[in-house]
Amino acid sequence: VAKIIILGSGVMGTSLTVPATDNGHEVLLVGTPLDLDIIAELNRPGGVHVKLDETCSDRVKPISFEMLRTEHFSEADMVVVGVSSPGIHWAVEILNQMMAEPRPVAFVTKGLDPAATGLATYAETLPPRIPMMSAFVGIGGPCIARELANRQPTASIYACRDIGVAEHFVDMMGTDYYRLSVTTDDTGVEACAALKNFFAIGVSAMQTHYPDRKRAHGQSKNPTAAAFTQASLEMARLCERLGGAAATAFGLAGIGDLHVTVGGGRNSRLGHGLGTGRSVSDVLSKELAGETVEGVDTARALATMLHSGGGAAVRDGDYFPLASAIMDAVLVEEPFRFDFASLAVR
Amino acid sequence: VAKIIILGSGVMGTSLTVPATDNGHEVLLVGTPLDLDIIAELNRPGGVHVKLDETCSDRVKPISFEMLRTEHFSEADMVVVGVSSPGIHWAVEILNQMMAEPRPVAFVTKGLDPAATGLATYAETLPPRIPMMSAFVGIGGPCIARELANRQPTASIYACRDIGVAEHFVDMMGTDYYRLSVTTDDTGVEACAALKNFFAIGVSAMQTHYPDRKRAHGQSKNPTAAAFTQASLEMARLCERLGGAAATAFGLAGIGDLHVTVGGGRNSRLGHGLGTGRSVSDVLSKELAGETVEGVDTARALATMLHSGGGAAVRDGDYFPLASAIMDAVLVEEPFRFDFASLAVR
Repeated sequence: VAKIIILGSGVMGTSLTVPATDNGHEVLLVGTPLDLDIIAELNRPGGVHVKLDETCSDRVKPISFEMLRTEHFSEADMVVVGVSSPGIHWAVEILNQMMAEPRPVAFVTKGLDPAATGLATYAETLPPRIPMMSAFVGIGGPCIARELANRQPTASIYACRDIGVAEHFVDMMGTDYYRLSVTTDDTGVEACAALKNFFAIGVSAMQTHYPDRKRAHGQSKNPTAAAFTQASLEMARLCERLGGAAATAFGLAGIGDLHVTVGGGRNSRLGHGLGTGRSVSDVLSKELAGETVEGVDTARALATMLHSGGGAAVRDGDYFPLASAIMDAVLVEEPFRFDFASLAVR
Repeated sequence: VAKIIILGSGVMGTSLTVPATDNGHEVLLVGTPLDLDIIAELNRPGGVHVKLDETCSDRVKPISFEMLRTEHFSEADMVVVGVSSPGIHWAVEILNQMMAEPRPVAFVTKGLDPAATGLATYAETLPPRIPMMSAFVGIGGPCIARELANRQPTASIYACRDIGVAEHFVDMMGTDYYRLSVTTDDTGVEACAALKNFFAIGVSAMQTHYPDRKRAHGQSKNPTAAAFTQASLEMARLCERLGGAAATAFGLAGIGDLHVTVGGGRNSRLGHGLGTGRSVSDVLSKELAGETVEGVDTARALATMLHSGGGAAVRDGDYFPLASAIMDAVLVEEPFRFDFASLAVR
C-alpha cells in the first residue's frame, strides 16, 4: 500500500483517486483555494463531489490545502498534480513550501508553459522551479475525467526521462480499465497535450462547415477525416520543433487525445462555432463566456514562437496550413477559414 | 485535355469522373455486367446515376463494357479501375483483352487479394497478371464517393513505385476539393486500404459498448479514442509485416481512411452490432444480409496468415490484441470481446 498525494480536487484530480484506491493505495486529496466547497462536501458523511457527482472511496482523505503539513509529503510515496494551467503557480508554491525531501511528481496539467521565455513545455520549465522534485512525470492520452471515475476503460501514457520512475507510477496507478504505457519523451507528451487542444479547434470546425443535405447526421465526413490526418501530421512536426519525438504524436498523447477532444469539450465547441462562420471572439463571448479554452492560449503561444523563428514556414502555409488557419482565426478578427487548396497537391 | 477510361460505373468510379471532368478531361465511363441499368439511365437525356443521385458532366461518355474496343485503350492516357473486390477478376479480364499497348492503371479496389497464395496486396498480385499494365497505382485515403461527387473537400493519396506516374495521375485528377499527395509505398497503401475496414469493426464496437447514462449522446468516448489509437498502432505493425511502411498507416491511407470508415458504412454497422453483444453471423444475417462487408474478408485472410507464420505473436494477444479480438469474433461464433486489460500495462 502506497501513500499518494493528489494536489487539486477538481474533476481530474478526484478521478485519479479511483484507480489509485482500487489498487488499495491511500490518497490524500488536497483542495486548492478554489476547491473549498468540494472538500467541505466530501468531508460530510455520504458527501458527493459537486462537479463529478460521485462519492469517494474511504481510502481517500479529502483535506483543504491549509491543513497540509510537511509530514504529509515526507510520508508520501509519490505526488500527482491534478490542477489545470491556471493553478500551476499555486501547485509549485505548495510543493516548494511543503516538500522537504525529494519526491517524484506527476502532472496532468496540459503542456506549454505560458510563463516560459520562448515556447517550452512544463517538462522543461517545472524541474528547475521545484528543487525537491526528484523526477518530472507528464501524463497524456485520452482521458475524460468523469469516464475514468466511472471506470470506463481508457489508455494513457506516463512520461519520464527516468523510465523506472514512469514504470513505478504505472504500477501504482494502472488498473484493468486504466491502461498505462510509458515513454521517456516527456517533452513530446507535454507538447501533444497542448497541441491537441489547439488542433481540435480546427478539426471540429470541419464537423459543422460542410453540411450534407442527404444524410441524417447532416454533415460530410471526408473533410473531418482529412483534417484529422492533417492535424496529426502537423502535430508531429510541431512536437519535433518543441524537442519531442514525432512518434509521440501518433500515439495516445497525440492522436488518441485529439480523437477524444474533437469528440467534445470547450475546444471542440469553439471549433463548431467557427465552422458555421462565427468569429472566435463571438463564440468566446457567448456560449463559452468565462471558460478557459486552452487551445486559444496555445494558438497565441505558437504564433509568438512561429513569428520569431521558424515562423516563415508556418506563415506561408507551406507546412502548417491547418495550424496557420487556426492561428489566423484567433489572432485576427476573421472567420476561421481552412482552405483545402492550401494542402499541397503532390 | 487527357482521355481517361474508368472501369466500373458504381458510386466510386462515377464519382471520380467529377474531378477528372472539372479538370477538362474526357472520361469513358465503362459499366460492368452489373451496371447495365446505370449506363442505360445515364445515356438518357438528363439521366441520373441511380445510386449516386447525380447527373454526369457532358465530358463523360457512359458505355457498357460490351461496347469497349481496343482503340479506346489505345487512345486513352490512363486507366482507373473503380470496381470493388468482387469485380476485380472482371476488370483484369477486360484489361487483358482490350489493352494492346502499355498503359498505367490506378485501382480504388481495396487491398488484400483473396486469391493470393499467402497474404499479399493487389500491389503485388495484379502487375504479373496484367502484362500491358505499365505501372500499378493504388489509391487510398478518406473518400466517401457521394461526398466527392458533391465536391466536398477531402485528401487522398496515390501510390506508385514509379513516383513520376503517381504525380502524373495527381496532375490529371487533383482539384481544389480533391487534394492529392503521392507515395512510392503502393504495398502500404493497399495494405491499409484493407486493414482500415477490418479495424473499423473493432473501433466502432467501442461506440456502442460503453453506455454513459449521464451524457446526451449516451456513449463514453475514452474507449473509442483508445481503441482508435490501438488500431492505428496495430495497423502500422501489420502494414510492415505485409511489406509496407509504418508511416503510411499514420497518413491518409491509414488513420485518415480509418477515421471516415468508423464514421459510417457497413464495417462500422457491423461493429455497432458487435458492441451490443450480438454475434457476427447475427448482424450479417439481418441488417447486413446480402452485403459485402470487406473487413470480414480481411479478418479471415489475416487469420490464415497469422496462424501459419507470425501467428503466435497475434494469437497470444501480445502485440495485436485488437486484431485478435476482431478475428476471434469473425472466426468463432462468439460475441466480440475486446478486453482493455489485454493492452499491456507498461
